[in-house]
Amino acid sequence: MISSNEYFDSKVKSLGYKSATGNSTVGVMEPGDYEFGTSSHETMIVVEGELVALLPGETEWKSFKTGTSFEVEANSSFKVKSVGQTSYLCQYK
Amino acid sequence: MISSNEYFDSKVKSLGYKSATGNSTVGVMEPGDYEFGTSSHETMIVVEGELVALLPGETEWKSFKTGTSFEVEANSSFKVKSVGQTSYLCQYK
Repeated sequence: MISSNEYFDSKVKSLGYKSATGNSTVGVMEPGDYEFGTSSHETMIVVEGELVALLPGETEWKSFKTGTSFEVEANSSFKVKSVGQTSYLCQYK
Repeated sequence: MISSNEYFDSKVKSLGYKSATGNSTVGVMEPGDYEFGTSSHETMIVVEGELVALLPGETEWKSFKTGTSFEVEANSSFKVKSVGQTSYLCQYK
């Protein structure tokens, strides 16, 4: 089954599925600022666009463009700004 | 706005948005066989998983795995088999 999810008043939408290695979602964010909590380890890969992220324990925002990625530990949270509409792949483990 | 689309009895779901260069969708396909028509040129990029495609004018099915892509001209059609659940990025131009 492909699950359909919406967050932040539908400004973030995602589709959940199972990959060969675990659970994943692909999604799209509208331009804006978001804070996400993690219940498991997440690898976020920018599919198309740009995310500027403030990762746990860091004080500096970093830009992640198409094809680049960042990781966030479980039971943590991170902030992202989406520059334009941005699509992403999130892998959970 | 992020558009939500479903095809083939919800076996294919996609999210539509605008990238810096044009219209795109990210989506997920359930395992199965599909035939898609194109109204514009499409670049299909496998985000995670595997698509086996029969492209217009070809007689041999070809496998496209994570990170690989194929292109289809406008006003054409192509067949794909999704091996497991597969996520993809489709860029229109």
